[in-house]
Amino acid sequence: MKYPKGIKPQPKGSARRTRTLDGKVKYGSRGMTLEKDLDQTNAYYLETGRAVIHKKPTPVQIVNVDYPSRRKAKIDEAYFKVPSTSDYNGIYRGRYIDFEAKETRNDKRFPFINIHEHQVDHMKRCHDQGGIVFIIIKFSLYDETYLMPIGHFLPFWEAFLNGGRKSIRYTDIKDASLLLKQGMNPRIGYLDAVDEFYFENGE
Amino acid sequence: MKYPKGIKPQPKGSARRTRTLDGKVKYGSRGMTLEKDLDQTNAYYLETGRAVIHKKPTPVQIVNVDYPSRRKAKIDEAYFKVPSTSDYNGIYRGRYIDFEAKETRNDKRFPFINIHEHQVDHMKRCHDQGGIVFIIIKFSLYDETYLMPIGHFLPFWEAFLNGGRKSIRYTDIKDASLLLKQGMNPRIGYLDAVDEFYFENGE
Repeated sequence: MKYPKGIKPQPKGSARRTRTLDGKVKYGSRGMTLEKDLDQTNAYYLETGRAVIHKKPTPVQIVNVDYPSRRKAKIDEAYFKVPSTSDYNGIYRGRYIDFEAKETRNDKRFPFINIHEHQVDHMKRCHDQGGIVFIIIKFSLYDETYLMPIGHFLPFWEAFLNGGRKSIRYTDIKDASLLLKQGMNPRIGYLDAVDEFYFENGE
Repeated sequence: MKYPKGIKPQPKGSARRTRTLDGKVKYGSRGMTLEKDLDQTNAYYLETGRAVIHKKPTPVQIVNVDYPSRRKAKIDEAYFKVPSTSDYNGIYRGRYIDFEAKETRNDKRFPFINIHEHQVDHMKRCHDQGGIVFIIIKFSLYDETYLMPIGHFLPFWEAFLNGGRKSIRYTDIKDASLLLKQGMNPRIGYLDAVDEFYFENGE
């Protein structure tokens, strides 16, 4: 069977256990789905001239580089670094846009363990500077993806830092976020939600 | 002798030949000066709340990761990728800002060999979207650093793509750019030039 470019069928029995690059245990093969869907979405927005939004490269500490030939440099020792910013940023309708995207297989809550404090600090700063800042949260089990404006996220985060809940309840996310429409092209039309929340409502 | 944090004396006889990561031969040890000065400058702008601007991580294609222990992931095979965007972006005065920074030891011209076509295409797109976009060019031999707005850079680039000069003359850069003040903190106060060109002149 032939699938459209970039689309691969889910393997059967996909709830197998895998270990991700940062050592966390993840269940199922859907862990990278959101990232791939956003890559496809951003490529679509770029091609159609709607926005220029990119995922930043994974930050890596390069320790040693080998030169097996004059033309090819091979990195043979490097380590993952903790990111100091969010993963996605760019420009849309003349505005700076910045977001982080996270996926959970939890069916009741989004645990903060998925997010680094550095990243939230960064997003807060961008928000203070007048940027459009949010978190995209996918609940894999429901196949639902939400856009949560940073202003709605921060109260939960600050309560957590002050000893409160270590997660946001699914129901709270539903109440404080926009549900994103999913399709073929773009896969996750998050800019329609940005239009609705940041432009049409006059924020 | 003790030097302030982050400042190292230039080694004597610094005009030795070195090979950079992408295989190009570079002369002298000053190749990384501009990048370090911009890192310090951006850290200063971040601390003082003036702007949120970061250098993107070097894009790397990770091929293999080894797990010598449960907690530590070691990348033991990876390769440098050609960047598809410019190196720096962020938000300033509510606006999206995007730039590339390049250094040359040439005393008469800035050769285009220093810039990838992908990067210019990216900057053009950001410019079309209403972002503040420019190239910072340092002439190491003169210790002069210029901010060249992308609108001033593109005519030279397009002439080059159509078979014209493979470089921009130093004198042309001088005429079409803002000379950046250098200091201790920030080292390269490029946002003052941004204020002057993009805000005070009404662009």
